[in-house]
Amino acid sequence: MTLWALSATDAAAQIREGTLSSVDLTKACLARIEETDPQIGAWAYLNSEQALEQAEAMDALRKQGKPLGALHGLPVGVKDIFDTAEMPTALGSPAHTARQPASDSAAVEKLREAGAVILGKTVTTALAFVSPSATKNPHNPDYSPGGSSAGSAAGIAAGHMPLAIGSQTGGSVNRPASYSGVYGFKPTRGQISRRGALQTSQTLDCVGGFARTLEDTALLTDALTGYDAADPASHMRPKPLILEGYHSEPPVDPAFIYLDIPGFNLTGDMSAAMEEVCDALGQQVERFPAPDSFQHYIAAQLTIHTYEFIRNLDGDPAIAPENTDDVLKRMIAHGQGVSDDAYGEAVVRVAQAESYFAEFFNDYDAILCPASQGIAPLLSENTTGDAVCQKIWTLAGLPTLTLPLFSGENNMPMGLQLVGGQEEDARLFRTARWLEAALSPADPA
Amino acid sequence: MTLWALSATDAAAQIREGTLSSVDLTKACLARIEETDPQIGAWAYLNSEQALEQAEAMDALRKQGKPLGALHGLPVGVKDIFDTAEMPTALGSPAHTARQPASDSAAVEKLREAGAVILGKTVTTALAFVSPSATKNPHNPDYSPGGSSAGSAAGIAAGHMPLAIGSQTGGSVNRPASYSGVYGFKPTRGQISRRGALQTSQTLDCVGGFARTLEDTALLTDALTGYDAADPASHMRPKPLILEGYHSEPPVDPAFIYLDIPGFNLTGDMSAAMEEVCDALGQQVERFPAPDSFQHYIAAQLTIHTYEFIRNLDGDPAIAPENTDDVLKRMIAHGQGVSDDAYGEAVVRVAQAESYFAEFFNDYDAILCPASQGIAPLLSENTTGDAVCQKIWTLAGLPTLTLPLFSGENNMPMGLQLVGGQEEDARLFRTARWLEAALSPADPA
Repeated sequence: MTLWALSATDAAAQIREGTLSSVDLTKACLARIEETDPQIGAWAYLNSEQALEQAEAMDALRKQGKPLGALHGLPVGVKDIFDTAEMPTALGSPAHTARQPASDSAAVEKLREAGAVILGKTVTTALAFVSPSATKNPHNPDYSPGGSSAGSAAGIAAGHMPLAIGSQTGGSVNRPASYSGVYGFKPTRGQISRRGALQTSQTLDCVGGFARTLEDTALLTDALTGYDAADPASHMRPKPLILEGYHSEPPVDPAFIYLDIPGFNLTGDMSAAMEEVCDALGQQVERFPAPDSFQHYIAAQLTIHTYEFIRNLDGDPAIAPENTDDVLKRMIAHGQGVSDDAYGEAVVRVAQAESYFAEFFNDYDAILCPASQGIAPLLSENTTGDAVCQKIWTLAGLPTLTLPLFSGENNMPMGLQLVGGQEEDARLFRTARWLEAALSPADPA
Repeated sequence: MTLWALSATDAAAQIREGTLSSVDLTKACLARIEETDPQIGAWAYLNSEQALEQAEAMDALRKQGKPLGALHGLPVGVKDIFDTAEMPTALGSPAHTARQPASDSAAVEKLREAGAVILGKTVTTALAFVSPSATKNPHNPDYSPGGSSAGSAAGIAAGHMPLAIGSQTGGSVNRPASYSGVYGFKPTRGQISRRGALQTSQTLDCVGGFARTLEDTALLTDALTGYDAADPASHMRPKPLILEGYHSEPPVDPAFIYLDIPGFNLTGDMSAAMEEVCDALGQQVERFPAPDSFQHYIAAQLTIHTYEFIRNLDGDPAIAPENTDDVLKRMIAHGQGVSDDAYGEAVVRVAQAESYFAEFFNDYDAILCPASQGIAPLLSENTTGDAVCQKIWTLAGLPTLTLPLFSGENNMPMGLQLVGGQEEDARLFRTARWLEAALSPADPA
């Protein structure tokens, strides 16, 4: 197997054993990027020398017998809205191309403490919002990888690095993961500190990760979680041990629920894929129509996102007319049209949604949900796709996991989304591993 | 076994399995305190109701299937120099009896995130320095438990709680552990954030822990380590996995070194105990006279400590004459007598010591050293004992572990101290476990 294609878990084990160096792995990733990125455009900032220096430092720690982190020596892509002290952080905006933070964001601190190599900064849509980036889908350059974490999703799909981080306010992790055929996980609200990441919505913003295996996704997330007094969403309760959850066995076969949610407007491909999953799970899945409140949650997400966005970015040149496209201008106008009362009502929906789901997962291990309406949009459509399949869960602060299980038109990937209970991220990974095994064709005897 | 005597490891396992509740364990600890603390005086602040509320919350998380921390439901004593948002933090000074911090210190945050119950605040000597507290040694009330982490060491020895935290600037963790017959561990400089703990010396202050078993000491320390940008000594390199080190086997029998250090002035009891250990280890231990530089390190520790102490406490009523005893007054006077030049020279010794020990542990797994000159001082001697056996290692930022292996005059406990290389805390615990097994009498066949 070529080095760049190694899973994070395998590469970390080899680095630990001394059969692989971080320098060699990083070089392999850099070569893969050099070969494929001209066609993809996943990178906002990449400096081979800086990456290799970090890899050398991680190899040196190993040779000196110093402690090794859970991600020791692994190259990680970082969405360009996370501050990095030694790399610029342009927020995807032409207004900020020269922006150089003084210190690392909390998520980058965690990556470094886990021994990761910060490979570079991946392309984000402008201000992590709706304007499409120029990044192309590695499966077919006519398609978008989605957004806003475009470069992280596309880079993982293209084998640029085993792990990457992104952020989600609507569906910016789970949706591009679906379009790009990779794993994407947004943990329970408050598990990963957002300090030093661009704040677009204090209510909805959250940090998530991308990988090419479920186990790698768990490994990455565990390295990122932790209390931080600087993030008001952070809490001091114990964090889920997600890798432990991944490796554990469900005491009984998990119970799933599939909710028919009006407004999702799934493509035929996706509808058929979801039917197939439900059929395969048989009695393990119950189907219900969604309660009417779900439509309110979907609307509340947009209200909160746009209202808070224009206030967080108030006065920032990045939202000046000369720096925004029509898609972003429409969202800004939407935010300007939201009254304080309407915003207040939307915020109440957050508590309602949290309360609705508080007991929900006593009866079910996970909600089955499409991770996108269908395959990725064509670049010519000038959209990053619709986040409708994520909005309810993001609003409710639930953990959401994209599993790259489907393919649709033109053999383009699509994802299944699993939704779990708050702070039950570890259980969700246990369920996901069971589900993947249940859905995969039996090994030939 | 009575509940209060359970090890942290065993209690945590039982709480995890549901065979023990945090409430029952906390009640058992509170009852033990009620029974024995009138004779000991280990507590600066204790509120049963507050402790039991936390225990109930930890039990509730378990019942709800929420994540459990590594210290889930375990009562932990916190030296009264660590800020606590819900408990006063009096710094051992009559000037600060009503001091109520607004937020938790970093170490307390870590304990809470690990699921611990903050049982209360343990007695510290005034400003974590030299004035003896009224705390009595649980082994014999005529003796001191040492200081400055008097209540944490005494409380662990008396079975008030399975785990406690303290701090060390000279020898304030390892020495009281020696006198009190418990494990005490001060990790490598920079592993545990000092944010929110009383700063007496930015160069020397560090956080450490106490327990009644080696494994518990490892468990506690792992829960406390982590990067914090707010502490200048903190670093983003991966942290040692100390419990993993404890559970690992040395590839070959460890090599020890015993250094004859002039000025230690050991009692006959301690000299004999160290000889016995060296004899038992035979060829596994080499003996050398210490280099002359060690005397400079011992002197530099006092210079830095007193110089920085009076500047950190400048203007604080706690060092006003009416709030200090003669012992502290002498230290203040000493600090006032240190010139800027003398301080500058002492700070250079820190780098020299770090450099001296940087390669040292290529040849040895650990330095064998007494954890105190002998048994605890009598209360009537009006001293917390001499930190001379710790000063060199504290200056050099090395991890130091007290093992309660000896007993001296009047059957009072004394400790063996193991010193390891910087960031080799995990290896030190591996070595310590090997050593304990090597020194314990063989099981009767």
